[in-house]
Amino acid sequence: MELEVLCSRTHDVKNVIGNLSTEVKNRVLHDAAKSILAHQDEIIAANAVDLENGRNNQMPQGLLDRLMLNPSRIAAIADGLDQVAGLNDPLGEILSETTRPNGLILKKVRVSIGVVGMIYEARPNVSADAFGLCFKTGNCVILKGGKDAIHSNIAIVNAIKEALKINQIPEDAVNLITQTDRETTTQFMKMNQFVDVLIPRGGAGLISAVVNNSSIPVIETGTGNCHVYVDESADFEKTLNIIENAKTQRIGVCNAIESLVIHESVANEILPQIYNRLEPYHVQFRCDEKSLSILSGKENVIAATEEDFGKEYLDYILSVKIVDSIDEAIAHINHYNTGHSETIMTEDSEHADKFMKEIDAACVYHNASTRFSDGNEFGFGAEIGISTQKLHARGPMGLEALTSYKYLIFGDGQVRP
Amino acid sequence: MELEVLCSRTHDVKNVIGNLSTEVKNRVLHDAAKSILAHQDEIIAANAVDLENGRNNQMPQGLLDRLMLNPSRIAAIADGLDQVAGLNDPLGEILSETTRPNGLILKKVRVSIGVVGMIYEARPNVSADAFGLCFKTGNCVILKGGKDAIHSNIAIVNAIKEALKINQIPEDAVNLITQTDRETTTQFMKMNQFVDVLIPRGGAGLISAVVNNSSIPVIETGTGNCHVYVDESADFEKTLNIIENAKTQRIGVCNAIESLVIHESVANEILPQIYNRLEPYHVQFRCDEKSLSILSGKENVIAATEEDFGKEYLDYILSVKIVDSIDEAIAHINHYNTGHSETIMTEDSEHADKFMKEIDAACVYHNASTRFSDGNEFGFGAEIGISTQKLHARGPMGLEALTSYKYLIFGDGQVRP
Repeated sequence: MELEVLCSRTHDVKNVIGNLSTEVKNRVLHDAAKSILAHQDEIIAANAVDLENGRNNQMPQGLLDRLMLNPSRIAAIADGLDQVAGLNDPLGEILSETTRPNGLILKKVRVSIGVVGMIYEARPNVSADAFGLCFKTGNCVILKGGKDAIHSNIAIVNAIKEALKINQIPEDAVNLITQTDRETTTQFMKMNQFVDVLIPRGGAGLISAVVNNSSIPVIETGTGNCHVYVDESADFEKTLNIIENAKTQRIGVCNAIESLVIHESVANEILPQIYNRLEPYHVQFRCDEKSLSILSGKENVIAATEEDFGKEYLDYILSVKIVDSIDEAIAHINHYNTGHSETIMTEDSEHADKFMKEIDAACVYHNASTRFSDGNEFGFGAEIGISTQKLHARGPMGLEALTSYKYLIFGDGQVRP
Repeated sequence: MELEVLCSRTHDVKNVIGNLSTEVKNRVLHDAAKSILAHQDEIIAANAVDLENGRNNQMPQGLLDRLMLNPSRIAAIADGLDQVAGLNDPLGEILSETTRPNGLILKKVRVSIGVVGMIYEARPNVSADAFGLCFKTGNCVILKGGKDAIHSNIAIVNAIKEALKINQIPEDAVNLITQTDRETTTQFMKMNQFVDVLIPRGGAGLISAVVNNSSIPVIETGTGNCHVYVDESADFEKTLNIIENAKTQRIGVCNAIESLVIHESVANEILPQIYNRLEPYHVQFRCDEKSLSILSGKENVIAATEEDFGKEYLDYILSVKIVDSIDEAIAHINHYNTGHSETIMTEDSEHADKFMKEIDAACVYHNASTRFSDGNEFGFGAEIGISTQKLHARGPMGLEALTSYKYLIFGDGQVRP
């Protein structure tokens, strides 16, 4: 289908989708889960074509693994749709209600956004996840997945459309852009007339391409250059546990830490302990001058460059900076961070308050691991991504991030004086 | 100052401005008001240069009027700053607080956005208004006003900076871009590194230029193609009053109506009455086939083109469409509207509910004038603009629209299992 036709058709049904009852939406979500399971063989066959093409194109092993679907992964996708059906429907919530002096009653009510565009890479599960979250919140979704997953995505979207059809819901509630050229993607980012928001999911390159080229509002999700700051009064046991957890539990995620900032009064004592705790993981330490001298002679310790402090390694690497005050720590973190998640380790509640107030990030922690920055850990039941921008949604985004509001004003003939 | 230096310097003080106490902010706002009054002569002299240039450049009379400052307008600008000082400070509000099963306490707290960029035309009052609203919400502001008002803007910003200086607040809390070429404006829209949000204020051309060229998130304010739908059971007296108010009270504003949609069962009776009510204002009626036949032979009645239904006239002109059902009315309005404000005139509460649910607009009214779509009328105390997009803020925007939130997470050594 031509891109503009596809966007326009999706836009045309947004009113229907935005006003479905919770009951109907949940039934469709369960049916979509069933349909995906029923079409498992076709989906796996389509995925095999993508995998074969990927291997022929020398796709790295890590990406091939993300692309691969098998019965247990398909069961997980279906299970995800069933779980979204079980979440509360946020639409219709009255966010505020006031009566004005002239008698007008003003209600602010939560509504769907309309048409959501998703741009993502070769992870076919995102196709079903995005549909589930958007449909539950009364939104239509236009999917633009990576070209390496195109056959898998077509098979998944066909299975979902079948569930819409048997429920007599417009199938245009979900559409997949099947053209895989860059030009179509760029055109898609200019479809303001039909698309209300774009959400890119993927690596830094994809996200910055969307931010720079889109004229549609974008929710930027993203990169995390997260820090742990070890203050003068830090409890060492908690600190060692949290640094180990935040650095090594999963290295490839945005809420893992990439940098340590340590007060000089405790650096001599705790830094070697941190080093020892992370030694089994072969973590490389990239150190400023002072920390380099503390760890001098040890394996896997090198001097940091200025660039290191701004890097999201997503690897067994940590940069280390020694500071002489909490103010210097805050200034350093605010200069280099990406606005994601930052932790202070301290037993001094005034320092904790200061840090939490002055650090500019979506999530600021006191004595806890940055790995908790996650929609499920925050109790949202689902996550569309973690926003590192400040408009609309910040931090882990649950269903509410996919909603807007409108004002309903009830009068009895009032005119403005 | 070079653009990047100016943006970077503003960015550098956002943390200070975002953490000022309410008391300090209010004192600065009052002092800024005093300083503007104290520098009235310089501001008027600078404005005289702009006016002289405007006249030499054949600036239309309406724009010259918007550009012109005199003692009473300067008093109004100062009064605006005093009023903003009197509003509640939204920062620090706890938006939610939960305790997770692992003992983590999660607080969602309202914070400033950081650096706001304003791009506007030759209305020098916007310089002070924007500073006041941004400063009250803990934001720094970078102003890019129209080149026709550059001398006035410099004088106003200098007066504000003086008030910052005497209170020992960083003067970079407000900066004016003094380069007036287009290239600088385009560069400004790409300063993502330093600017968190751009708010364009002005005509449709300015707004679409910002939406299309900015890589910084934009809050789109704007155009209003607003409708009144007269349903079968409309009360005629209320309907006539509201149409007169919404069309004629102020024609140049975005919440004035541009189009009538009338149910065919009442069109023969009410349309001539509407025509008579608006005759003193010489309103031109641009009619579809059916309404044209009802008003045939009357002065100022012409056939509408397809284009008319999508137009924001900002003039004594109304398009008219007759429909055979409320569904057709809703479909027509949702097709042509700009998502601003729409009214249904009906005594049928089921029809009112349906209209309010299905119309996709920021403000949907039952039996009231669209002219109420305004921050002050909604009780917000101030207005930065009326958003016609669905992300972040929709409809009239008060101080809250200039805020974001962050999560503060209080732990006691928790790590993610």
